[in-house]
Amino acid sequence: MDAFMDPGSVAVIGVSRNTGEGSFNVIENMMDFGFKGAIYPVNPLAEDIMGLKTYKDVKDIGKDIDVAIIASPRETVPRITRDCAELGIKGAIIVPQGFADADAEGKALQEQLTQIARDKGIRILGPNTLGIVNAFSGFTSSFMPLLREKVPVGVICQSGIFFVGSSIFTGMMGKGIDIANGCDVDFADALEYFGRDDDIKVIFMHVEGMKQGKNFFEVAQRVARKKPIIALKTARTQRGAQAAQSHSGSMVGKHEVFEAAFRQAGIISAQDPEEVLDYTKAFLNLPLMQGNRVGLVTFTGAGGIILIDTLDENGLEMARLSPGTIKKIKDLSPDWMPIDNPLDIWPALMKHGMAHVYELALTGLLKDPAVDAAICIAIAPTLPKNQHLDITGVIKKTAASHNEKPVVSWLYGPNQQFISQGLEEGGHVVAFPTLSRAARTLAALYRRAQFLRQPPGSP
Amino acid sequence: MDAFMDPGSVAVIGVSRNTGEGSFNVIENMMDFGFKGAIYPVNPLAEDIMGLKTYKDVKDIGKDIDVAIIASPRETVPRITRDCAELGIKGAIIVPQGFADADAEGKALQEQLTQIARDKGIRILGPNTLGIVNAFSGFTSSFMPLLREKVPVGVICQSGIFFVGSSIFTGMMGKGIDIANGCDVDFADALEYFGRDDDIKVIFMHVEGMKQGKNFFEVAQRVARKKPIIALKTARTQRGAQAAQSHSGSMVGKHEVFEAAFRQAGIISAQDPEEVLDYTKAFLNLPLMQGNRVGLVTFTGAGGIILIDTLDENGLEMARLSPGTIKKIKDLSPDWMPIDNPLDIWPALMKHGMAHVYELALTGLLKDPAVDAAICIAIAPTLPKNQHLDITGVIKKTAASHNEKPVVSWLYGPNQQFISQGLEEGGHVVAFPTLSRAARTLAALYRRAQFLRQPPGSP
Repeated sequence: MDAFMDPGSVAVIGVSRNTGEGSFNVIENMMDFGFKGAIYPVNPLAEDIMGLKTYKDVKDIGKDIDVAIIASPRETVPRITRDCAELGIKGAIIVPQGFADADAEGKALQEQLTQIARDKGIRILGPNTLGIVNAFSGFTSSFMPLLREKVPVGVICQSGIFFVGSSIFTGMMGKGIDIANGCDVDFADALEYFGRDDDIKVIFMHVEGMKQGKNFFEVAQRVARKKPIIALKTARTQRGAQAAQSHSGSMVGKHEVFEAAFRQAGIISAQDPEEVLDYTKAFLNLPLMQGNRVGLVTFTGAGGIILIDTLDENGLEMARLSPGTIKKIKDLSPDWMPIDNPLDIWPALMKHGMAHVYELALTGLLKDPAVDAAICIAIAPTLPKNQHLDITGVIKKTAASHNEKPVVSWLYGPNQQFISQGLEEGGHVVAFPTLSRAARTLAALYRRAQFLRQPPGSP
Repeated sequence: MDAFMDPGSVAVIGVSRNTGEGSFNVIENMMDFGFKGAIYPVNPLAEDIMGLKTYKDVKDIGKDIDVAIIASPRETVPRITRDCAELGIKGAIIVPQGFADADAEGKALQEQLTQIARDKGIRILGPNTLGIVNAFSGFTSSFMPLLREKVPVGVICQSGIFFVGSSIFTGMMGKGIDIANGCDVDFADALEYFGRDDDIKVIFMHVEGMKQGKNFFEVAQRVARKKPIIALKTARTQRGAQAAQSHSGSMVGKHEVFEAAFRQAGIISAQDPEEVLDYTKAFLNLPLMQGNRVGLVTFTGAGGIILIDTLDENGLEMARLSPGTIKKIKDLSPDWMPIDNPLDIWPALMKHGMAHVYELALTGLLKDPAVDAAICIAIAPTLPKNQHLDITGVIKKTAASHNEKPVVSWLYGPNQQFISQGLEEGGHVVAFPTLSRAARTLAALYRRAQFLRQPPGSP
């Protein structure tokens, strides 16, 4: 895997002469991305691509090459890969579709590739892959333009959409490996690599299906003790599994089997791409949740009720607050107001001001030994008359000075995206657009704390 | 209800002299909102509020008054409400907390209010309510500043958060009735009103609990034949139900009972506030879905697989496309490419361009008699080099010229919010940030079509 992630020299075989918008030119992307190694284009019809001397054949290059990116028509791929292996090239990234994802001929071609990897020792990534991205070293083989952000997240996927999405949509891919059809390099290889890579703190895996389940789970069990692994398993239903067969040529096991195996290996299972982003942000920024008791600061009773439903559904519960925590808010509220958790501060803040009461309530929760995490319901206003309701500053400051428990926030209001960014700056709070996403994410922090407390290898 | 929704004159009892930021002044909000009727402030300590002559007592006003908004301390409320009834005031909106939402004394006070409504014929909204908003007539009793948008959506809720949220967060409240503790005016009254209100096309109800279930479901069954009713039932779990008891003083039945009754009455049940917004936008803009067969245009195989899982979980299925629809894309794709539904157009568009292939595929789906709705996977790019992947224009144009089937879109990319707005302009497409939200919303359009085909009163 090391050669793939940080090559000193690459040959790009079957690269187009077209550049610019819509050309999907690998070499152009590679240069834009900041790759500093040697690039050798191979195209029998061109002399020069992106200002680089272009070769008719990979055999004509005559230099040491670490990695070959092969983008030629599918029927030429086995021959070229064999040539690469015989030239001593360590890894081949095979971009085109039309292998196990297509017809019988494609499946046969892919089997040839697997055989070449076994016989000749060359490692093969793909086919049907965008390949590698490494924002730390500056290498990418993607034909889609990507953003280079050195975030400590390693992405392993079976589809370009998660590769491109994790880079330019969520900004959550510092390094990525697109397993795709997986004729040779597989999940276990990629996971092993990210497991020992100190640049990577959190691993996200998109899995349609996998062949060598057993070996993978042995690796996963080891790596999950070192860093969180978040998995999104698609092809969950029988019909989804049939479709996966023709997408990445994956053999797909029963979903329940995967879920159980994930749980046992300490892998955190996400249900959709939004959850992946939520969990990633939480594991990067927040401490784990050591117990399952949640405290809520709210100025809406209805919000409190929605949260109680959601906690129940996620194995968490409302903390029973210590009397001292309750008293602080009770003293500022009308006599008739029942103060408990959720801490409803609306009557108190009507009288004593938003910032003062909010800080008192959140500090109370975070200092209370009966509370393992705090959720803050907060407003994201746009109307000028409601700006005084924005309490980003108070939440951030309070969370930063009590950083042993996770603090998350549900932002309610039209200005959610902007206020979220402000709230998340500094890395002490993660903001969510719904209470159920906030609760599910806390549950993931709690499950990981439980997993790490179990002795290794326990069921 | 008519007096509440569009009063000619209101008395505001217990209004503060403070105005401006954080004052929560009802009269200031009412004026900003554009209320044109007569306003009579009542406050024994003031001569003048917002430039209006202020009375010591409601009995001193000596003019016809349609509605009284009562914001005085809770122990004074029954006496004032009785005075209002004796003055011939038709409706009272009772703002303060501290009734069935609080202690035994509060519960007793609320029982007095119910008795006054019965004895004196005055209708009472609340207590613990923001009251009414009517963007069409320009009336509001809310102490939170709201936006005035004449959208054809009626909101009925039991909590200020949905009232404020539906106005300033989602912009989806043309008229609103905050039932809150519901000592007199209840869900049935509000639903009956919106049912015969021609300004309202879609009704959203937030329900924590209700007392007179039977009467409500009779009304709902009638109204649901005329316009969609979307309900968000909170306090679903036993713990949530206990909390609801102290929030709005609601008696909460078992969640499964509500779900079954909602289904039978033709009410569309939403699971969270996001779903409410999704369904509202869909019912306002899209035709119903007459069968359960979905066609998908995609350039990501993985996206197709996620969708198949989601359709299965929502009672929808992948359409079996007619041969003519398949052939159009097959002709532009490599020979080895298996073309089916999901229509994966990636290889075709790499060769023939995004806009051309996308239009061909989407038109094919919408003209195909085997397809009841189309989902479009689309990209929301920010990188300048990816701008050519934005196909908003094509999707809008194609959906507009085939408007008998719903067209929804999953937008994938960092520029989601902006591209969504563009896509939704003109009202032919609704965009979603996840495929599962798109599928769930189509399922709601399908269930409503099924409901309307049943004879009235059938189980």
